[in-house]
Amino acid sequence: MNRYFCLTLICLFSSFLYAQQNDSVRIRTIFNEALLHGESYNNLDYLSNKIGGRLSGSPQAQAAVDFCTQTLKKLHPDTVYLQECMVPHWVRGEKEKARIITSKGPSQEVKISALGGSVATPSKGIKATVVEVKSLDEIATLGRKGIEGKIVFFNRPFDKTKISTFEAYGGAVDQRWAGPSKAAQYGAVATICRSMTPDINDYPHTGSMRYNDSFPQIPCCAISTLGAEKLSALLKNDPDLRFWYKQTCKTLPDVKSYNVIAVLKGSDHPEEIIDIGGHLDSWETGDGASDDGTGIVQSMEVIRLFKALGIKPKRTIRVIMFMNEENGTRGGKAYAAEAKEKNEKHILALESDRGGFSPRGFSTDMSEAKKGKILGWSHYFLPYGLYDFSQTGGGSDIEPLKKMMDVPLMELVPDPQRYFDIHHNALDKFSMVSRRELELGGAGMASMIYLLSEYGL
Amino acid sequence: MNRYFCLTLICLFSSFLYAQQNDSVRIRTIFNEALLHGESYNNLDYLSNKIGGRLSGSPQAQAAVDFCTQTLKKLHPDTVYLQECMVPHWVRGEKEKARIITSKGPSQEVKISALGGSVATPSKGIKATVVEVKSLDEIATLGRKGIEGKIVFFNRPFDKTKISTFEAYGGAVDQRWAGPSKAAQYGAVATICRSMTPDINDYPHTGSMRYNDSFPQIPCCAISTLGAEKLSALLKNDPDLRFWYKQTCKTLPDVKSYNVIAVLKGSDHPEEIIDIGGHLDSWETGDGASDDGTGIVQSMEVIRLFKALGIKPKRTIRVIMFMNEENGTRGGKAYAAEAKEKNEKHILALESDRGGFSPRGFSTDMSEAKKGKILGWSHYFLPYGLYDFSQTGGGSDIEPLKKMMDVPLMELVPDPQRYFDIHHNALDKFSMVSRRELELGGAGMASMIYLLSEYGL
Repeated sequence: MNRYFCLTLICLFSSFLYAQQNDSVRIRTIFNEALLHGESYNNLDYLSNKIGGRLSGSPQAQAAVDFCTQTLKKLHPDTVYLQECMVPHWVRGEKEKARIITSKGPSQEVKISALGGSVATPSKGIKATVVEVKSLDEIATLGRKGIEGKIVFFNRPFDKTKISTFEAYGGAVDQRWAGPSKAAQYGAVATICRSMTPDINDYPHTGSMRYNDSFPQIPCCAISTLGAEKLSALLKNDPDLRFWYKQTCKTLPDVKSYNVIAVLKGSDHPEEIIDIGGHLDSWETGDGASDDGTGIVQSMEVIRLFKALGIKPKRTIRVIMFMNEENGTRGGKAYAAEAKEKNEKHILALESDRGGFSPRGFSTDMSEAKKGKILGWSHYFLPYGLYDFSQTGGGSDIEPLKKMMDVPLMELVPDPQRYFDIHHNALDKFSMVSRRELELGGAGMASMIYLLSEYGL
Repeated sequence: MNRYFCLTLICLFSSFLYAQQNDSVRIRTIFNEALLHGESYNNLDYLSNKIGGRLSGSPQAQAAVDFCTQTLKKLHPDTVYLQECMVPHWVRGEKEKARIITSKGPSQEVKISALGGSVATPSKGIKATVVEVKSLDEIATLGRKGIEGKIVFFNRPFDKTKISTFEAYGGAVDQRWAGPSKAAQYGAVATICRSMTPDINDYPHTGSMRYNDSFPQIPCCAISTLGAEKLSALLKNDPDLRFWYKQTCKTLPDVKSYNVIAVLKGSDHPEEIIDIGGHLDSWETGDGASDDGTGIVQSMEVIRLFKALGIKPKRTIRVIMFMNEENGTRGGKAYAAEAKEKNEKHILALESDRGGFSPRGFSTDMSEAKKGKILGWSHYFLPYGLYDFSQTGGGSDIEPLKKMMDVPLMELVPDPQRYFDIHHNALDKFSMVSRRELELGGAGMASMIYLLSEYGL
């Protein structure tokens, strides 16, 4: 009996070693295929340069739906289909204009960008004195007396000392998201928000905001960091200066749009679903290459890699190109709602929405036990420069899966240093993306999905 | 006795923990200072945009010597001085021209760049049939019969599947460096070499070559990868096509130039010297921002960080801006020769010459015992994304210190994926550098130098 036990152990251990070696070789072939024949970069070229910025509800967003549908069909997965969702339809209108009107001397033009969701200014623009604040709390402290009739200027800078720029972003974004209504609560007529970036330059960064229904909807915009520095400096000696800006943005009725979904059916456990995706929509200030064209083309590449290498997944892989991450997450919510309604079994969802930079690891948002299993695979990724499995988090589009169904989440973690230079502004362009970095990220995702499809979670 | 021993142990352990914590805090302040007030990026702007490409012997190289001398003096180290060296003076001359002359149909222009050190073609250019090879050995196999009177076209591509692009470069560069003389040995009249890059585009990459005195000096150039692909494709159906190119480059007499050196004298062990540097010269096809402007400004930043934070090094730190790495390493050789002659004690030399991309670690070239000590510090760097201490190597400029005096070497290892897109070609421009990535690299170097200056090696 003891002898049989030993033999069994030896057999088990040998097959474990064999599987390890096999997986290691498989992952090498995935990276080779991506680096030699990857299609992510060419697809991103089309998405960025032929279609361009793809705000929800725009013709470009629909063109992106069509392009991804066709591209995915050419890869011959088991299914490609559209999932309907109603999306907000906010339009920017004419190019925004802004001026600092000093008490003496000529007025100075500065660069602004309407925040997504903002109402327009009156047609002649809005003009008022400015109160600079560093936090939402400061508004409450200043009270109605300090705020009423003024333009509130949120100027708390991005914390450059954070090595994770995403952490710095998280520490600044309340000013953009919740600032306008907080200012309106105390009688402000409009807001200006310093752009969310560590860089000092003249590109204003747009992004979403949300009105609180209890207070008036006042216009709000982002000012470039250079403009913010200038305004702040001028205010010190000239607190009575006025700021004028004009924007003609508006929210039209919701329109019908789509998530694009492709499926590779699992051979052994077809009922176990692994989700992978990015978001199709983008701001239109740039061409949306890095936010999130890169996540879209990397997700499509996962299918291409599986097909090109003849990998038949044991569990079902669904690639979802989510619509409307930027100003509503309606695609993500629609996807999770249907999954819950159908009582589907989703074992993990992985998003890529941090740009196509050199991949450095994966973040996780799941139980410690599951995290342990993922960590057990980390050695497979080290030869490719993916070493960091320490961060927590998934992506906005897959968050509803977590909330509604407690699905474990992951996100690809690329190098974060350049991301907020180009985020939500005119610099988010195809030319900022490196082919190799992009393809390495896609290969990393495909390798993780391969392990999940083989072994589950 | 036992009790005293325990107390001693506790004291030792406490002071060890205290030092660890202290160093950790110190390194955090170094990174904060670099990210908040770093001067590397501004200095690189000047070096790249005001001075530009700085080939040895050029007025730009001298301007770079002057700029660095002045910039270093403003930082008030203990000494700033110049170290003379004679450098080669190769000049490119007129813009190179090249055409593929097919047997039928019109001729097609392609982009080339003379290799550094090459002789000119005859004034009317050189025209001959082409033999494509993938290796130097293939020339010997083809023999004089297959080579004589022809232009040899080296077309072994960069291996895109290598995750380390430097490894791929190492696997291709013999074609550029030694190819011309090997071809001349068998009677070739000129050579063309495929550019050393994983990308396919129309930027030819220059770089050094070396003639073997036993064979005739024939003209040699690099062709863009797009041009190489085109030429190779045309040759398949039209093996008798001819290639024509013209370049007017030449080597003038050696000129006097300089290494720029700044010193922070050690307080406790002034005789123990730690070297840190990059190279001042660059090719003139771009502005030399990444090769090696970034290494220069990061090395200067080490001094600025020590001064700004009031760090008094226990061991002597010498920052050396080496001249002539690209086509002679004369600066590096002169520095090592003088160090040896003076019988100086150099405990370590660290170079930055792989671009200013996001830092990922350090390579080492030293005994296992010394490597072990460095590895013992690796935990200090992990919070800043420097995780990789596995690679072997130093830099070209400090290599003579190793050869002549067995000095342990290190090199900053930044993310390697973009480097060979911009290496030695027109894309090596300031705009390709990220401020944060650059400053993080400088902070990483300063932190390593801080530990070395505290604890030696």
